[in-house]
Amino acid sequence: MSNKLSDQVGSVGVVETKFFSFGDVDNGLTLESGVNFGPITIAYETYGEMNEDKSNCILICHALTGDAHVAGFTFPEEKKPGWWDNMVGPDKTFDTNKYFVICSNIIGGCKGSSGPASINPKTGYHYGMEFPIVTIKDMVDTQKVLIDHLGIDKLFAVVGGSFGGMQVLQWTVSYPTMVRLAISIATTARVAPQAIAFDAVGRHAIMNDPNWNEGDYYGKEKPNQGLRIARMIGHIQYLSDLSMQQKFARNLQNKEKPDYNWSSEFQVESYLDYQSDTFVKRFDANSYLYITKAVDYFDLSSQYGSVRKAFANTEATFLVISFSSDWLFPSSSAKEIVSALRRANKDVSYAEIQTDYGHDAFLLEVGTLSRLISNFMEYAL
Amino acid sequence: MSNKLSDQVGSVGVVETKFFSFGDVDNGLTLESGVNFGPITIAYETYGEMNEDKSNCILICHALTGDAHVAGFTFPEEKKPGWWDNMVGPDKTFDTNKYFVICSNIIGGCKGSSGPASINPKTGYHYGMEFPIVTIKDMVDTQKVLIDHLGIDKLFAVVGGSFGGMQVLQWTVSYPTMVRLAISIATTARVAPQAIAFDAVGRHAIMNDPNWNEGDYYGKEKPNQGLRIARMIGHIQYLSDLSMQQKFARNLQNKEKPDYNWSSEFQVESYLDYQSDTFVKRFDANSYLYITKAVDYFDLSSQYGSVRKAFANTEATFLVISFSSDWLFPSSSAKEIVSALRRANKDVSYAEIQTDYGHDAFLLEVGTLSRLISNFMEYAL
Repeated sequence: MSNKLSDQVGSVGVVETKFFSFGDVDNGLTLESGVNFGPITIAYETYGEMNEDKSNCILICHALTGDAHVAGFTFPEEKKPGWWDNMVGPDKTFDTNKYFVICSNIIGGCKGSSGPASINPKTGYHYGMEFPIVTIKDMVDTQKVLIDHLGIDKLFAVVGGSFGGMQVLQWTVSYPTMVRLAISIATTARVAPQAIAFDAVGRHAIMNDPNWNEGDYYGKEKPNQGLRIARMIGHIQYLSDLSMQQKFARNLQNKEKPDYNWSSEFQVESYLDYQSDTFVKRFDANSYLYITKAVDYFDLSSQYGSVRKAFANTEATFLVISFSSDWLFPSSSAKEIVSALRRANKDVSYAEIQTDYGHDAFLLEVGTLSRLISNFMEYAL
Repeated sequence: MSNKLSDQVGSVGVVETKFFSFGDVDNGLTLESGVNFGPITIAYETYGEMNEDKSNCILICHALTGDAHVAGFTFPEEKKPGWWDNMVGPDKTFDTNKYFVICSNIIGGCKGSSGPASINPKTGYHYGMEFPIVTIKDMVDTQKVLIDHLGIDKLFAVVGGSFGGMQVLQWTVSYPTMVRLAISIATTARVAPQAIAFDAVGRHAIMNDPNWNEGDYYGKEKPNQGLRIARMIGHIQYLSDLSMQQKFARNLQNKEKPDYNWSSEFQVESYLDYQSDTFVKRFDANSYLYITKAVDYFDLSSQYGSVRKAFANTEATFLVISFSSDWLFPSSSAKEIVSALRRANKDVSYAEIQTDYGHDAFLLEVGTLSRLISNFMEYAL
């Protein structure tokens, strides 16, 4: 028997990221800002087989700094599978023996889809801040072009957590007849001023880094210190006060008493150092600017007058999930979505998962999420 | 009648900041870190008259970026009085017809007491990061030297909010027989990992500013961008989620629809810009490093084994106040103090003020605070 993780039972094995491009400089997609933008490339992965009537297609929308690589391995010896591998695969919640699962990287990101690090065909150089500002609606519109390209008329389900959950909601609003089941986890229909404020601080940190250089740093020193600070703020938002108490308390790093110096003496400080150091190796600072800007603009009510009106035409059946200790997108945000859907006479189930993990629970409470989602998908069939 | 604010009824009028110095390079104060440090200067103000038996003395401890100038005006035409002027003055809560009120600037700060911007007598140049790391205990120890200098054996009351509240608690522990009434508002007996994390991010922002230059920037360009970011984080902590919703919602600055650019489009963003711009004009970045470090180290239990044991010898009567929407030092922190005091058989009153203002309520809920504190002081007399 093979030792490779990619050969194990329950894994989708080795998968290849695919690329789909459309539009050109003169004829692209009209963005929410009014800008017409092209060409656009979308990186995506698929798992499982599409059935004959294309009725088994599930679109997964990734979170803020995620990517299209949801499950399996990009090469046979890889140690770490895709970001939601425990949910996607043969006999798993999103059972690839049964469903055709798709995930695409958002535009504005840096994981294969068009973003600020991509080459601008007009200049032959990286877009940098010449890349247009994009919104969640724009991200969903590009996913729609991909879904059309795959020949799918109606998605069996659209699923996502956090930033991915915003895309789920936007899908049901922008393409009300194309989504059968909508599963939104730990998200909001309109981003609150506190979250906008933290995002703005993160952007200031990046833009104040001398290496940022107005976004023109490709091939040079990167604005890593600024991006580190932005990411640290994110990690504080993703944990709950209680999970921080449980995980770190006031423990010092490898000692009993403080040394009274300027090093990261507390464990919580070295956690932030480690997480942000890892992050800057895999993520582009300009993309962080673009995607947090997209978050801040997200407000279903602004486009339609109210959240309820936004949902007026959707034909989807909804499952809304929140986590009790999530203070980034708290249960009150989920309840606003549920209430708007009920007032719009839509079919919605809601579950608040009791957990201390905070917003991070989206990737940690796998067992509970799996049961809820499996039951929902079975009931809805 | 005069138009000057300083001549108005209820004002202490024009006050002068005084300075008291002690110790020298070879014989200073032994800090919690073990370092012996001197000379030390303390800037302080007093209001009202000390009575014959010196039994009417109230020490006010200021918050993180506050100063000794609690009440009145530094010059006759000044427009803005001291930071707690609505609580301190003739016939006010801390009635200067009745009490002798003292407030001193913390060491490590930048408002007249010794701090990193002070001149190091060994070098003739600003200390910068040569200034020793100081703790809340050290700050209280220097206040004690001042109180001794003023000839006061026992303080009628020690009062403070937030960072000032930590000093109040430390006073009752370090000098258990010297405090008659202890009034601690919106504070904690040990700073939680979430607060440590945010403080660490703020320090990273300052230290990553290219102008910081290892703390050696006096007379040069200051690390204002880094300090701005640190302060923005603070302001988010001081407001509640709800007060941000009420104050800013998702409103844009002077427009109905976004322009999709990189300016501070949301009102909450321009609030942070304005507050932090104002702050960097009045505060030294190095002091911000030192005082947030002092906050992070604050843990009464670490010095004595538990919070209850820390309070074992205190003779003070306590009033503990928290604000329902404060998420920086939430009511649970206040309840930990109260519970420890009760288990130590101390006399303690506790009030949670219902308010949406968050941590900022300390300076906003003046009416309620005034009633609570006046009643407490009267009852205890």
